[in-house]
Amino acid sequence: MATVTDPSSLASFSKCITRHLNLRFHVDFDRHVIKGNVALTIEALEDKLSSLILDTKDLKINKVTANGQDAKFTLGTAHSFNGSPLEITLPFELSRGQHVIIEVSYETSPQAFALQWLTPEQTAGKKHPYLFSQCQATHCRTMVPCQDTPSVKHTYYAQVSVPKELVAVMSAVRDGQEADPKDSSRTIYRFRQAVAMPSYLIAIVVGALESREIGPRTRVWSEKELVDLAAYEFAETEAMLKTAEQLAGPYVWGQYDLLVLPPSFPYGGMENPCLTFATPTLLAGDRSLSSVIAHEISHSWTGNLVTNKTWEHFWLNEGHTVYLERMIAGRMFNEPFRQFKAMGGWKELQDSINTFGAKNPLTNLVPDLNEVNTDEAFSLVPYEKGFALLYHLEELLGGPEVFMGFVKSYIQMFAHSSVSTDDWKNYLYKYFKDKVDILNKVDWNGWMHTPGMPPVKPQYDTTLADACIALCKKWIKASEADLSSFSAADLQKLSSHQVIEFLALLLHEDPIPLSHVKRMQEVYNLNAVKNSEIRFRWLRVCVRAKWEEAVPLAFQMATEQGRMKFTRPLFRELYNFDKYREQTVSTFLKCRSAMHAVTAMLVAKDLKIDQGKSTAL
Amino acid sequence: MATVTDPSSLASFSKCITRHLNLRFHVDFDRHVIKGNVALTIEALEDKLSSLILDTKDLKINKVTANGQDAKFTLGTAHSFNGSPLEITLPFELSRGQHVIIEVSYETSPQAFALQWLTPEQTAGKKHPYLFSQCQATHCRTMVPCQDTPSVKHTYYAQVSVPKELVAVMSAVRDGQEADPKDSSRTIYRFRQAVAMPSYLIAIVVGALESREIGPRTRVWSEKELVDLAAYEFAETEAMLKTAEQLAGPYVWGQYDLLVLPPSFPYGGMENPCLTFATPTLLAGDRSLSSVIAHEISHSWTGNLVTNKTWEHFWLNEGHTVYLERMIAGRMFNEPFRQFKAMGGWKELQDSINTFGAKNPLTNLVPDLNEVNTDEAFSLVPYEKGFALLYHLEELLGGPEVFMGFVKSYIQMFAHSSVSTDDWKNYLYKYFKDKVDILNKVDWNGWMHTPGMPPVKPQYDTTLADACIALCKKWIKASEADLSSFSAADLQKLSSHQVIEFLALLLHEDPIPLSHVKRMQEVYNLNAVKNSEIRFRWLRVCVRAKWEEAVPLAFQMATEQGRMKFTRPLFRELYNFDKYREQTVSTFLKCRSAMHAVTAMLVAKDLKIDQGKSTAL
Repeated sequence: MATVTDPSSLASFSKCITRHLNLRFHVDFDRHVIKGNVALTIEALEDKLSSLILDTKDLKINKVTANGQDAKFTLGTAHSFNGSPLEITLPFELSRGQHVIIEVSYETSPQAFALQWLTPEQTAGKKHPYLFSQCQATHCRTMVPCQDTPSVKHTYYAQVSVPKELVAVMSAVRDGQEADPKDSSRTIYRFRQAVAMPSYLIAIVVGALESREIGPRTRVWSEKELVDLAAYEFAETEAMLKTAEQLAGPYVWGQYDLLVLPPSFPYGGMENPCLTFATPTLLAGDRSLSSVIAHEISHSWTGNLVTNKTWEHFWLNEGHTVYLERMIAGRMFNEPFRQFKAMGGWKELQDSINTFGAKNPLTNLVPDLNEVNTDEAFSLVPYEKGFALLYHLEELLGGPEVFMGFVKSYIQMFAHSSVSTDDWKNYLYKYFKDKVDILNKVDWNGWMHTPGMPPVKPQYDTTLADACIALCKKWIKASEADLSSFSAADLQKLSSHQVIEFLALLLHEDPIPLSHVKRMQEVYNLNAVKNSEIRFRWLRVCVRAKWEEAVPLAFQMATEQGRMKFTRPLFRELYNFDKYREQTVSTFLKCRSAMHAVTAMLVAKDLKIDQGKSTAL
Repeated sequence: MATVTDPSSLASFSKCITRHLNLRFHVDFDRHVIKGNVALTIEALEDKLSSLILDTKDLKINKVTANGQDAKFTLGTAHSFNGSPLEITLPFELSRGQHVIIEVSYETSPQAFALQWLTPEQTAGKKHPYLFSQCQATHCRTMVPCQDTPSVKHTYYAQVSVPKELVAVMSAVRDGQEADPKDSSRTIYRFRQAVAMPSYLIAIVVGALESREIGPRTRVWSEKELVDLAAYEFAETEAMLKTAEQLAGPYVWGQYDLLVLPPSFPYGGMENPCLTFATPTLLAGDRSLSSVIAHEISHSWTGNLVTNKTWEHFWLNEGHTVYLERMIAGRMFNEPFRQFKAMGGWKELQDSINTFGAKNPLTNLVPDLNEVNTDEAFSLVPYEKGFALLYHLEELLGGPEVFMGFVKSYIQMFAHSSVSTDDWKNYLYKYFKDKVDILNKVDWNGWMHTPGMPPVKPQYDTTLADACIALCKKWIKASEADLSSFSAADLQKLSSHQVIEFLALLLHEDPIPLSHVKRMQEVYNLNAVKNSEIRFRWLRVCVRAKWEEAVPLAFQMATEQGRMKFTRPLFRELYNFDKYREQTVSTFLKCRSAMHAVTAMLVAKDLKIDQGKSTAL
């Protein structure tokens, strides 16, 4: 094994690697901390190994043992965002191939980046507190001392003690529960993850949860107020899983549950194994936003089974997952729909690159993350530039059937391991050894190591997009006199996906006049639409047109949910509306403490607050 | 996970399972023992685990520790063939999900069933001693205290100290070598197996070995006297590996080396990971016996990656591997050749069932192995009845392309795990969910749980077999006067595969007259043929015809090599020749001590020696 370096980890994983974690969590809602104990089974990769380093951040370390013997430890100076290295001196030397069990007793900080502690008021039920974690990319170290790098994979077992009125779930197969023998007011929940996975996929939720069975291997979990809505919304999960299995191979994780989080969850979905986390903003009521679920299901293969070796290779996780997600859409609906989604993705890529700036090296497909905070580097670029590359290769190499053959073989080849872009590219050349001439013509440097839009724009079928383009053009070109020609019927011909696309197209144009947005509301009544993807784009169109009536709605959406995809652009739009800039900043400052730590950190940056301050708390 | 029981293991693997072995071997050629130290990383599957049992047989246990603390141990009463349970009392309790490192210092017996110690005289080079292991099915416990059941899989690392004039190789990726710091006359060789595998695939050879590179991931190893011959014979290995990958998916083991053993190796080949063991009887000089290599390569998927849960499900390993082996033959040659080999297999199945008796429950596809020694149960039945079932299903479900789709998906589904016949059958029904009506018509009980020939005989293409059948018939029907009509030209039209088939057909008939075998030798000169498969069948034809001139040749072949496929039937044929029965027994008794322990035990049984004695030494 070649030495792996990961700029986002301080752990010594080139000297030794973790094989298993045995976790005990005591979740303390009063103090907002987890009292933790982790036993790491670690394999030495070199002889005479006498010390090792784990990643930690904001952890209080109480005790460390190695095979039961006390071990000396020191916490190194905190790096601005990578945390503090926990250096452990072993009381004996290990030889290459030898295992040791390192046990660490510790406590998390109330400010742990991975954990959001919600008060009862912040929940749907209003009665009980709630805890959820989000470890990707580099926050597991704020919850568990570990080798917090996706290049290392391990199994885990966990016992979690929580107040007995609450339920705990984790990214693993549930393994029973029992009264806590040390405290009759608490219950211990147990979990077993028998498939080796990286640290960023450790996940936990504790709350007043209920669940419904919606398929032979699927339950949907949430607070009881949302559980029926969620069961309806995600009813197609088993059909998607089956389609994914036809494309990518057998699903190896056993259970596939879904958990709908409180509104402050910062992402659309998170592919935690056995238990996908989903934002409640997917609950459109009409199953129209299920592509996020297709995306998380796809991660069961690309991301969770085959994992990026470091976050610099994040496009391997996301590009392939978007590719699979759209293949599922193509199989479940039709090929023009896949093409339509692909075309939409190209536009989202343009938006992302515009936000970063076309010369920003973070818009490289394979960015250099030395001294870069992965949260700040996060964008749709690895998703959509990655997808565009794969779609481009599909065009060059013989179409979807041929290229899916490669993707399936790539998954089988690298299942249970972590891969770099070079590993992927070498396997591509090996798989298509009869088409090396074609591969050699690809502008690899342009695609991978150059900022901005890709060197080639793929061709997409526009069947479903044409109506969106036509309606957008009609609005752009309309004079005041033309406004009467619009009617409710314009949208009735369009699917919700097409309405989203129509609004996305409008956002690519100069702001439309105030008269136009008012007329649009009059004929389409978009203020009444609950579908979050439509609402989000519509409110941006309104704020850009400086329609003041929409401003409170935009503030409401920006603050009542915390999905960064919506919250960050809405705050930015409001900030750019000069008249409301001050109110934007004061609204943010008021909400900040109740927001997810990562969201708060990034919105502060977007609004030019805390410039120059360390991003660490 | 449901509780697994394995009648061939005494270990407590339903309470805890091994994840990793760290081995240190000191190979002592003077005393014919390995001084060993093994550290097992073991995961508890239940709470309050305070003791565990490992399989051992004929081992001397010196010391046991758990996480470095002394642990009490007792060796239980020896079972006649399953060995002695090593019960270890832990100095602390484990909870479900917790890992512990159990270290055992021990020494093997000079009579260890897994190990054959050869004197210099028994080697090709005549100068150095030689050691080889054969752990399948249940002999690993005579070399390493372990959970010796194929239901448990673990990685391993090993350091092996041997006299410096010798070379050690193992079933793993080579990981360097160095002078033994404790003894300058010795070298330590290191090995790393990073893919989890069952104990029966641990393998070691120590001898005056050389190697030649014959492909990008393949070296061939043997004593120097054979290495060039072997390099020539196995030159098609990379082409076979590539064909296997096209059929079954990527090869995940890294290296694929071949090792040619001394003549006493009891099997044709043994699929030890990264290092297939092969009998020197494959060195035909014309690459005509390479199907054994195709078979061992195929085990990289079926057997090593997807493993039978117990030896009662051995047909899952062997039936699928024969199926893959013949698919490779079909791809590398042509479909009629696959059909020809399949038809030959059906006949070998008949032979095997005749040997056991058609009502013997060991001829069930899924036999009950309670109180049965796996060595005594071994036969071609799981290979050829297993293949016949898969071929029958192929016929029913849509042909080779369709059925290979299932086999590939089965491999992907169960990669890195162990499966039972029920797991296989459930997945078959799931994969062919649209063809359940067809599957329901299969006589599963007849195929799996009934002795004798299968309930259905598949149809095979006879294109290549017709000439063999015709020639056999001609000899059977020939009168003395007809003998002049035979000539050398008869065989010149046949491939070596067809000559083998012709002789196999003759063995299915009543013995031919002495005049006929003499004429056959006159025109075909089969006594001069070196191809071991031809020679073996020819000598059986001769002995059955009571041709005394052939008797010394048959004794020679039975004793100069020890492949059980040849040695056992030859000894049986000689024993059945009344006039030579006494000489057969005395010859065996003379050779016995130099034979492989398993071969000696089974030939003794075949020759009705040691009746009623324990098979243990």
